[in-house]
Formats: sequence, structure tokens, C-alpha cells
Amino acid sequence: MKKLITALAGGVGAARFLTGLVKLVKEEDLTVIVNTGDDIELYGLHISPDIDIVTYTLAGIVDEDKGWGVRGDTFHCLETLKKLNGEAWFALGDRDLATHMFRTGLLRKGLKLSEVTSLITKALGLKVKVLPMTDDRFETRILTREGSIHFEEYFVKNDSQDEVLGVEFVGADLAKPALGVVEAILDSEIVIVCPSNPVVSIGTVLAVDGVREALRQTSARRVAVSPIVAGAPIKGPADKLLRGLGFEVSAYSVAKLYADFLDMFVIDVADASEKGRIEELGIEVKVTNTIMRSLDDKVALAKAVLDN
Amino acid sequence: MKKLITALAGGVGAARFLTGLVKLVKEEDLTVIVNTGDDIELYGLHISPDIDIVTYTLAGIVDEDKGWGVRGDTFHCLETLKKLNGEAWFALGDRDLATHMFRTGLLRKGLKLSEVTSLITKALGLKVKVLPMTDDRFETRILTREGSIHFEEYFVKNDSQDEVLGVEFVGADLAKPALGVVEAILDSEIVIVCPSNPVVSIGTVLAVDGVREALRQTSARRVAVSPIVAGAPIKGPADKLLRGLGFEVSAYSVAKLYADFLDMFVIDVADASEKGRIEELGIEVKVTNTIMRSLDDKVALAKAVLDN
Repeated sequence: MKKLITALAGGVGAARFLTGLVKLVKEEDLTVIVNTGDDIELYGLHISPDIDIVTYTLAGIVDEDKGWGVRGDTFHCLETLKKLNGEAWFALGDRDLATHMFRTGLLRKGLKLSEVTSLITKALGLKVKVLPMTDDRFETRILTREGSIHFEEYFVKNDSQDEVLGVEFVGADLAKPALGVVEAILDSEIVIVCPSNPVVSIGTVLAVDGVREALRQTSARRVAVSPIVAGAPIKGPADKLLRGLGFEVSAYSVAKLYADFLDMFVIDVADASEKGRIEELGIEVKVTNTIMRSLDDKVALAKAVLDN
Repeated sequence: MKKLITALAGGVGAARFLTGLVKLVKEEDLTVIVNTGDDIELYGLHISPDIDIVTYTLAGIVDEDKGWGVRGDTFHCLETLKKLNGEAWFALGDRDLATHMFRTGLLRKGLKLSEVTSLITKALGLKVKVLPMTDDRFETRILTREGSIHFEEYFVKNDSQDEVLGVEFVGADLAKPALGVVEAILDSEIVIVCPSNPVVSIGTVLAVDGVREALRQTSARRVAVSPIVAGAPIKGPADKLLRGLGFEVSAYSVAKLYADFLDMFVIDVADASEKGRIEELGIEVKVTNTIMRSLDDKVALAKAVLDN
């Protein structure tokens, strides 16, 4: 009997959800397919923000207040970079840097991002399988009035202040899913779409060749958790991105983006009124508390997703 | 009237000597041409050990006990790299890392090593002009029984324990001097060869196209300080390298390597007996204390070099 679980994940929201999920399932049975559209090269280092957020969170070393980075990290390198007049808008802690350097060194030696990710997660004691959605270049860029900028420049450097005229996925047409991505979706009992940005976190994973088809084909039960609660994201610029692309900012709007493959959508009690509209898309709806303040909240939400 | 001074430099020995020299000359008048044969890429970062030693020393931020790295630096990144099972034999402090990241980022954007070096030295307040010997690839490798290894692997990782069968300068045939290198030698009143390893620190600079010719042609007075005292180097593996190449380990042996261009050789009192032999090479000899324990020692040695 299949008992494998696959989760599609972005960064902080997904990582928090997964913290609850791993309390209910065997870590070995869980594969997390992570967005790499935010990956960026800074100072020659390959940085994979969402992979690191998921990894640090599951390893129990994340800075929980921020949701990213290593708890208790120092920033001596970054402070020195500022003195050199270097670009220092992307906060890199000294311990966090080790991950980027380890990754970059091995990528330059010819290893794939998925292979390096496996080495990092194992070194940190994870039994969960963390898979980048692709080993190929896939870069999320935001179209603004000043031109196209990398997602992290939009999100971190410019603090999501630019007006979003569009989103582009550079490399998406050539990016192949990393080994194991399609297999995990096809072989799982349940596929969970974490409460992540539907455009730049989940939308990227869905844009990788074969992923959307696998989601349609799989016999797994496909459940998503809404990242939008009461017309706004819990974290991040999902509202601005949805609006920029001409979508309504609502749980319903997210459900529509997943409607071609989704079996069930978990929405917040604040959005109970949207239940009917979403059901009309042919999607079951479960209404529950989706706001994760405590570990109990996270476990309860994971339970709601698993209990069908 | 010319009053420019050019120094050819390796790492720690040269940097200590230069500390004395800048007490006697105007920093603006000094150009230091630095060995880049030790440059190495680690974790995707371009590291220039000798440039950094010279820069940190002249900026007054070097860890004086070690002779390299930044005083009071932390090693949180390196400790974390070890936990990831990463190669961590090259000690990279957190603040030191900022230099490598700043450099690598700009090199990847297409700047030359000499341009980046200028930005770094200016940011650290240096008025001395620090020039890499070349902007091109030039890699010093040591031939051992196990094959050819990068100089830093020989020196740092293997602690100079391999038997030296030979030395090779990969890229030397194509490497052009950085802009200003030949000009500095030709335009100076005095060219000083610092007390650095004659094979892998000065030998590399001399191997760059046009440098040796410029040293022969310049009207500058050419003075070298012996890095060998009483048959041994003050620091580093110069004895092993000289022996490995079939040379005698002595001040005389170093003088012979520079004999085609050198006007004067400054040797230690411990080597006074070599004076006659060196003079037979057509080189003036000055005998003085060359061991630099205090700043006074450094200034006195610089004075001996300048006073002709």
C-alpha cells in the first residue's frame, strides 16, 4: 500500500506547515519538492532561499522569528561587505554562508543541485527527502516599470514596493524536473500543495516540464492549503503578484489556479463564504483554522490535510 | 625627479617589510606588485592570498600573530562548513570572507582582478597602489609523487610535507602583466624585491611576460632583500622548494636567481660570509640585520634598502 507523501513547497509558509506534518508522518515517507525560481547568484555564490528555509526549518536550526536563516547566527561577513561598499541587501549570516559555499563549491565541481541538496540535508540529520523542482536554470523575474528584475531584488532589495506588471519564468521552457520529482508525485498516496505563494512558489513548480501533467495523472489525493486568508497572504507579496497578473486576491482565485488537478482545498474559517464558489470548480473544500501560530496549530492543520 | 618606488611582493615576509617601508616613503609613491600564483578558487570564491596579506597588513587589520587573515576575526562559517563535511583546510574567517565574496562578485561581473584590488584597497583606506602581477590565470602547482597539486594544497592542506619534484606555472605562457606593472618598474627610482619566496612568490612575478625584461631595462636601482637567513627561510617552504629544484638553500642561491637584473642584495649578518661569492655575480652586497621582530627592525631594514 502506498503511504508516500509529496509536498510542493515555497519558503516560510511551507516550512511552517511541514513542521506540523512531520509530527504526523514518518520523515522517510515524505518528499518535499521545493521552488528554485528564487535561486540567485550573489558574490559568485549559488543561493537557494526556499531550499534553505525548508531545510533549516525541518532541521530545527531556523531563526524562527524571521522564518529564514540560522538561529543565533552572526553577520560579521555581511557587516564587512558593507564596509567594502559591496551590495549587502541580501542578509547572509556567517553560518548560513557555509551552506551557500558548500553548495557552490560542489556545483562548480559538476554535481547537480539535487545531489548537493541531498548532501546538505543528510549532514543536517534530515530524513525527509528535499528535492529542488529542477536542477536546471529557472529564474523568476518580476516585470516592473523600471524593467525586469530578479524576484529576490523585487522581494528583498526593493521590499515588494515595485508595481508588478508581470512575472516571467526565465528558463522554464528548458527546465527538466529533477530526478525523482515526477516519480514522487506519481507514487504518492497524497500530494500536498503547501500554503505558499501560488504564483512565484507553487506556480514555478507547476511550470516545470511534466509536473502539472503528473499532478493530473497521479492516483494520489491532491490537497492544497490556501495561502490567502481573508483576502491577504499571511506573509509575502502574493496579493501584489496576483493583482499584478489580473487575478482576484482570494482563496477562490488560488483554487482556480489549481483546479485542473486539485481534489481538496483547505481554506481558513475566515473564508468560509468562499466554499460554494470553490466547490463549483469541482474541488472539495475543508474549512478550518489555517493560521499557524503554535506548533499545535501546525499539527492540527497537517491533520486536517491528511484526514480524508 | 623620479621618486616612485616599486616593490615585488609575495605574502607575509613582504608585507612585514612593507610595514617598515611605508614609514619612510609617501604611500602615494609606492606600487606593490603582488604574486597571484597562489590564487585559488574554493567554494566558488576567488581567493588571492598574497594580495590580501599585503592589503590587510598595510591597512593595519591583519592578524599579526598569523601574518594573514583579519585580526579578531571569527570562524563561524568555517566551523559550519566542517559540520557539512565540506573541505575546510583553508582557514577563512568570517570578515576575511567578505573580501573574497566582494572580489568574486565583481570578477563575475567582468571586472579585472586589478580593478577589484583597487576598489578593495581604497575601501580599506590604502594609498599604496597594490597591483596583482597579472589579471590572467597563473597557477603555481607543485609536482609531487602523487601528482601535481595547487600550491595552497601543498603549502596549507599538506603543510609542505610532500617531496617537491618540481614547480609549474600553469598559464604563465599566456599571462600578460596587469596594467601598470611594467610601467611601474620602468618609471621608478628604486625597485625592491621583498624578502619573499624566490620560487613561488617572486619567481612567479618574474615569469610574467615582460616583467624580467623591464627589470633589466629600467634605470631604477634594483635592490633585493634575502628571504634566506643562515641557510633557512624565516617563514614558508622556500628551503624545500629550492632544494626540490636542485638549488642550494642560501642567500647566494637567491642572488643567482636575480643576478641578471639586480644591483644590490641585502643579506643578513648571519650570512656575511656569502658576501664575496655574491659580489662575484656582479651584485653589490649590504650586510645588515634582516630579521624583522619589531616595527623598529622593519623600518631599519627598509632604511638599509633605501639608503644607497
